[in-house]
Amino acid sequence: MKAKEIMDKHFIYVNPDESIVDVSIKMEESRRFSIPVVSSEVKLIGWVTSLDVTRGLRERLKVTSEIMRPKEETFYIHENDPARVAIIEISNHKLVNMPVLNDNEVVTGVIRALDVVNTLSSLYNVKVYKLYEVMEQELKGVTLDELVEASAIMRRRSTGKRIKPEEYEKIIRDSAFGEAIWATGGLEKFFAGLIAVGELVTARKVGKAKK
Amino acid sequence: MKAKEIMDKHFIYVNPDESIVDVSIKMEESRRFSIPVVSSEVKLIGWVTSLDVTRGLRERLKVTSEIMRPKEETFYIHENDPARVAIIEISNHKLVNMPVLNDNEVVTGVIRALDVVNTLSSLYNVKVYKLYEVMEQELKGVTLDELVEASAIMRRRSTGKRIKPEEYEKIIRDSAFGEAIWATGGLEKFFAGLIAVGELVTARKVGKAKK
Repeated sequence: MKAKEIMDKHFIYVNPDESIVDVSIKMEESRRFSIPVVSSEVKLIGWVTSLDVTRGLRERLKVTSEIMRPKEETFYIHENDPARVAIIEISNHKLVNMPVLNDNEVVTGVIRALDVVNTLSSLYNVKVYKLYEVMEQELKGVTLDELVEASAIMRRRSTGKRIKPEEYEKIIRDSAFGEAIWATGGLEKFFAGLIAVGELVTARKVGKAKK
Repeated sequence: MKAKEIMDKHFIYVNPDESIVDVSIKMEESRRFSIPVVSSEVKLIGWVTSLDVTRGLRERLKVTSEIMRPKEETFYIHENDPARVAIIEISNHKLVNMPVLNDNEVVTGVIRALDVVNTLSSLYNVKVYKLYEVMEQELKGVTLDELVEASAIMRRRSTGKRIKPEEYEKIIRDSAFGEAIWATGGLEKFFAGLIAVGELVTARKVGKAKK
């Protein structure tokens, strides 16, 4: 996925000679905490945040160019760069928004930390139960009940505590993928646990067939 | 995981009778775009953003209580609520920060959208290759090469395009979990693909053993 696929195309921008008062009104009305400063051809010149604006108003400065951060100190990304790079930059530099440029240095969009939260949190909120349903579909001849039963056995083996399959089913119905990952100690461990469940179910089936 | 486990405990706050000028300096120095307004016992009274401050400065208002959003209109969360709820609220209401309260309505921390991005993006950036290594460890007697070979076969079946195992290995070395999820159409589909690969490898091993 490219940066341009997650960017906000309906972004607000200002020119460097716009008054700070006008910029403050623009930002308040659009509820934007930071916006790009651009030339008449919408090429990136700098960046201004609402905290630059509060300083400008307090110090009675006049125009945007007096408060903006210049382009050289602004984090931006090319529209064809991987979206992943934008997410890493936003995360590392604690950015609220980040401008996206095309080959001609023209700002074509803004990636907002809030959109990143939105995108990532939808992944985070997938119910663990959904993944059990996928296992049921993919592993031929295996039922959801067998998977839940195997999980309860695995849980007992690792914690020493007995847990009923019904209780385990309730846990995976209630918990989200993101929580399960934290609880198990990371994506890799969570994934390893699911594979182990799949293997145990298969082994139990083979064992029953032999009897 | 609870809200208090992901909250920032070193947060900035203001009192309702503090001057807007002082608040603007506080926010600029701490680089905070929104902060809680609290009583002398640090109980939540309201919320103020840098955009409220720009309006206050422009309209020559004097104290924080004139620009703050009252508690009734502020989104907050209890420190023992699930962290997931905070992430959903921040995502749904496009918040920058969110106060966390204890039983006595005292603000004990602030959850920042940026911290949420940080937490979620570390998950997002796990390399797909790591998951193949987990499969190799968990599925007894299966090698990484066999898994990559099976994946290349699966890819050819689904796309009709021939792909060399070496090329496939490069793809999974380069791509992150988050990207793979988007590319395959969601967590469930990605997960189903991995199970299918595991099954194909096992079937091929059984086939070879019979020869």
